[in-house]
Amino acid sequence: MTATDEVRLARVALTWLVEPGTWAVYRLVAELGPVAALDLLRAGGSPDPTLRAAVAARSAGGDARAVAEQALARTERLGARLVTPEDDEWPVRVAELERLRLSGTNRKVDLETAPPLCFWVRGAWPLAQAFERSVAVVGARAATPYGTHVATELGYGLADRGWTVVSGGAFGIDSAAHRGALTAGGLTVAVLACGVDRPYPMGNAALFDRIAETGLLVSEWMPGAEPLRPRFLIRNRVIAAATLGTVLVEAAARSGATQTLNRALGVLRPGMVVPGPVTSAMSVGAHELLREQPSARLVTGVAHVLEEVGPIGADLAPPARAPERLRDRLDDAATQVLEALPRRKSLALENVAARAGVDLRTAMRRLSMLEELALVVRRDDGYALAPSTGRRATDPAEDGRVHASDGTSAAPPQR
Amino acid sequence: MTATDEVRLARVALTWLVEPGTWAVYRLVAELGPVAALDLLRAGGSPDPTLRAAVAARSAGGDARAVAEQALARTERLGARLVTPEDDEWPVRVAELERLRLSGTNRKVDLETAPPLCFWVRGAWPLAQAFERSVAVVGARAATPYGTHVATELGYGLADRGWTVVSGGAFGIDSAAHRGALTAGGLTVAVLACGVDRPYPMGNAALFDRIAETGLLVSEWMPGAEPLRPRFLIRNRVIAAATLGTVLVEAAARSGATQTLNRALGVLRPGMVVPGPVTSAMSVGAHELLREQPSARLVTGVAHVLEEVGPIGADLAPPARAPERLRDRLDDAATQVLEALPRRKSLALENVAARAGVDLRTAMRRLSMLEELALVVRRDDGYALAPSTGRRATDPAEDGRVHASDGTSAAPPQR
Repeated sequence: MTATDEVRLARVALTWLVEPGTWAVYRLVAELGPVAALDLLRAGGSPDPTLRAAVAARSAGGDARAVAEQALARTERLGARLVTPEDDEWPVRVAELERLRLSGTNRKVDLETAPPLCFWVRGAWPLAQAFERSVAVVGARAATPYGTHVATELGYGLADRGWTVVSGGAFGIDSAAHRGALTAGGLTVAVLACGVDRPYPMGNAALFDRIAETGLLVSEWMPGAEPLRPRFLIRNRVIAAATLGTVLVEAAARSGATQTLNRALGVLRPGMVVPGPVTSAMSVGAHELLREQPSARLVTGVAHVLEEVGPIGADLAPPARAPERLRDRLDDAATQVLEALPRRKSLALENVAARAGVDLRTAMRRLSMLEELALVVRRDDGYALAPSTGRRATDPAEDGRVHASDGTSAAPPQR
Repeated sequence: MTATDEVRLARVALTWLVEPGTWAVYRLVAELGPVAALDLLRAGGSPDPTLRAAVAARSAGGDARAVAEQALARTERLGARLVTPEDDEWPVRVAELERLRLSGTNRKVDLETAPPLCFWVRGAWPLAQAFERSVAVVGARAATPYGTHVATELGYGLADRGWTVVSGGAFGIDSAAHRGALTAGGLTVAVLACGVDRPYPMGNAALFDRIAETGLLVSEWMPGAEPLRPRFLIRNRVIAAATLGTVLVEAAARSGATQTLNRALGVLRPGMVVPGPVTSAMSVGAHELLREQPSARLVTGVAHVLEEVGPIGADLAPPARAPERLRDRLDDAATQVLEALPRRKSLALENVAARAGVDLRTAMRRLSMLEELALVVRRDDGYALAPSTGRRATDPAEDGRVHASDGTSAAPPQR
């Protein structure tokens, strides 16, 4: 077994030993690497008692390494594959879930879930490439005909313009978005909360088969894993972080879909919301978001969505191979905002917006992002350039948003 | 004829001589008083050639004083009355149309129309009192069943909670709002673009009769005046300025109703918008406003509207009789915002909002208002207290918004 095989086995074993999204495991992997982290945990050596107990409970059901070996064999039999951060096709954007957590900003969204350790994938497209120009369309399972219609149109329109439509494979809005993309002959990705061999819900089996043929089924859980309730919320962060923006179409008050949208805003992606009749219970969550989340953006169709995530073609340039200056990787609005800031003094939000020629919302969002990237500091009386601005970024994965290179080198399969 | 009669006659004559909303006439009246202004215009003495030509053209059709005398006699026969700024029941809020224009702020809304010179009124309630706690509900004539339902519910709910429902008497949303208020046994006011004796559209004749019985029909145009097209837009500013807030329910793109909402925002009233299905052409204007007007607020029902215009009871205190300190007349949010500003230095918008404990939108709106009231100054790096803060206001009519005393002393009739 090669070193790489050891790493892959360890990641799978860790995923089985402790539920994905657990910070203690993620940090251990970051510190020691997957192999040593697994060894430590199997030896009962975690300093975290909760984690130690979880590992012990799980280990009673089998040996993690043996389970992982079986899982990998099963993965191969299924025609599925394991994708890990060591692979070229790893979607680096999901690492931003980590950066935001570690920077300790006081956000209202729940970011208590660590980035994934690995993905199971069914389908031909390289994972990172499928997510490269992607938009998530999420919403209620108990969708109304209105919501279903809107989600289908969005899925169709986005796919028709070359965007990947990402959703969760659920009934209602998710299914409508996937179907719209398939009808357009486009690429669609279902991010699941269970094994890729037993996509849930069963009623969507035919849909999942079609998605696997032309798009991707993706999961953090190994083949055979059940769609346990908490897994849906853990899964949602991947939908939010792996895409360039999330559109919410219909949601009951404080539902899982509104949580996905909040996650998207939390990782500084456009969070878009389709309004609906105020008489519909299925639009209450959408309207709540529009009222309470100043950065949520009302959209009524594909054109509005594309305004938010950027026009196609803008990021078709070949992916950069070498570390590059952080500033070169900002989108236009962020660059304008950055250039609007004077050298020495600070500037109030509105004046930044006015000087940059962008609206308040855009200015706010970009300033937050630039703050996260340590290019801008916030002071009592406004925003200012950070003293360090101009420094080189050393690790592309740490740069956050905006067309991060994902290092994909494989040619895309024929669509 | 008493001095007062002369003034009233002059205002009526001026209204006939030149279309209401004309700044040149309004300014002349402000400088010379209505009687001298009329004499000047009748003598062809206006320095403004456009105005001189307009007066000459109109005068060819009759003598303004004679027309005004006939109009006043007709008004009396109708059981209607003339209300002028000299009267106790004059709704002082409409004067804010002037203040904003004169302050020369660079607003995006069209404020090119001067405040009214007088109103014709049919109905028992004192005009100012009817407007005191009022909300405008406006929208498309070609309303959908959805819009009609929502407007009826809003009209009912607002009237049921003691608020006056103001609208324009048109088919569609306007009618639905009036009807909702009437059904609740509440007060409703139709502000017309034609004479109160021939309310337009004819198809709403029975509705207008019911409104006149329990509420008010109001117009800037004398009895017999026709509903000419431009008059609707002129009329809209009264709906926006006389109420505490405007709700838009359904509007085609860039329609008259969206203009009313923009006017409301222009005079610093809450501009509220009810979203609808994105598939409906009748909600396009509403969604446009929500996307493009950062201060427009999404509302889904009466509770949200009341959040914006203030809870009932908050302004039930007896109207103040004497000039009072400007600060004492601010609403809670404005007071909080003002108190959040430090003595000497300035503060960025967001920090003001944070310190005041209000959301960004509220902070922005209140800061604009406080700036208009000269209590706050805007600087490059944020907002600061104006040096003059604490000075006494001398003219209540100049104070702007927020429960301005209108000097109404008549007891309200039984409802």
